[in-house]
Amino acid sequence: MSGVNGSRAVVLASGGLDSAVTAAIARRDGHELYFLTFDYGQRHAVEVRQARRLAEAMAVTHHLVCSVDLRAIGGSALTGDQGVPKDFDRPGRASEIPVTYVPGRNLIFLSLASAYAETIGAESVYFGANVLDYSGYPDCRPQFIRAFEKAVKEGTKAGVEGRALRVQAPLLALSKADIIREGVALGVPLALTHSCYDPVGDLACGQCDSCRIRRDGFRTAGVVDPTRYAIT
Amino acid sequence: MSGVNGSRAVVLASGGLDSAVTAAIARRDGHELYFLTFDYGQRHAVEVRQARRLAEAMAVTHHLVCSVDLRAIGGSALTGDQGVPKDFDRPGRASEIPVTYVPGRNLIFLSLASAYAETIGAESVYFGANVLDYSGYPDCRPQFIRAFEKAVKEGTKAGVEGRALRVQAPLLALSKADIIREGVALGVPLALTHSCYDPVGDLACGQCDSCRIRRDGFRTAGVVDPTRYAIT
Repeated sequence: MSGVNGSRAVVLASGGLDSAVTAAIARRDGHELYFLTFDYGQRHAVEVRQARRLAEAMAVTHHLVCSVDLRAIGGSALTGDQGVPKDFDRPGRASEIPVTYVPGRNLIFLSLASAYAETIGAESVYFGANVLDYSGYPDCRPQFIRAFEKAVKEGTKAGVEGRALRVQAPLLALSKADIIREGVALGVPLALTHSCYDPVGDLACGQCDSCRIRRDGFRTAGVVDPTRYAIT
Repeated sequence: MSGVNGSRAVVLASGGLDSAVTAAIARRDGHELYFLTFDYGQRHAVEVRQARRLAEAMAVTHHLVCSVDLRAIGGSALTGDQGVPKDFDRPGRASEIPVTYVPGRNLIFLSLASAYAETIGAESVYFGANVLDYSGYPDCRPQFIRAFEKAVKEGTKAGVEGRALRVQAPLLALSKADIIREGVALGVPLALTHSCYDPVGDLACGQCDSCRIRRDGFRTAGVVDPTRYAIT
């Protein structure tokens, strides 16, 4: 399946709501979609399965699942043995960095995505970073994205030869409710998306920070939440 | 074993000559050494074994071997099915990018190293990039290294909090002969280092570009080459 303008985009696909809406935006922008999902030793391996379902539902050109051992690198509740916090105050203040922060995660993921983009000749990488819900993550800030683009320009064959890679984060300034409304408008199969940090079998836990933000978002957007939660 | 000034450094350790000399320089600079080696689906898995031997010989504090599936990302003779070129003209002119270039390799490796550095509280990452022998690789240039440091500053908790990571490439402007002389001066066990792109069992092939540069380096430095080559 070719994009309207024939250009390719790599989409960081986690199986979550944000990356699904991001993928739909990349397609609306006229790109042919190449999904890239990381199997990084996360406790929620369900991410990979959800991403596969979404890739199929969206009929992407190719879906690459790439293993990278972030568990070896360590340092976060999402990959290590620390518990995932429940019911603590919502993060989002600039001065606080949540314990779910994985050191360098977006730096690593965007680096791999940039390499993949260069290999397939894609001109863009799309990812679902969002500063409102996750302002505590330094690697979700525009300053980081611009600095990263510059590093890619200086450090890749494509960049040196003048084919600069654009890193697109179209959700950066949107609220979760705005993202959900955009997803509905673009026909994203929201029921296939997954956000939970700590799922219980096939169910979202309903209590972790990610679940709470998601539930609030659906409520605020006035959209029925198709998610199946363990605790409602 | 603690460094003279108590600070930690992550050293990208490939098992090769350059990274071994780089590690010795990091130690001379007073750092406690943390080796990071990538198992990235390279055909020369011997790299990992050599890096382990070197880590043991240098009694580093910790040696982390991290898997990352660069083969999935594709795009180069070093990870894919293309042959490794033999006996072609020595690369090194700024306008040529060798086929052994792996898209985004140093970007990916330095990203993982930066995450590891943040996890263990290291202030520096040392790597053995060298512009004279490898000027065809865009990600071995000072412009790239500075741009990468800026991306880390903007994208990591440590950077945002003012603990900037330094990326040190002490071999950047040295010739291979200079690197070998420095290695001898610092007591690096050069016989344990490995450079070959296409080894024959335990032997270096003696013909690939990396072997040729290494042999020329020892010859120019006036140092006996301890390498065992398949073809002399």
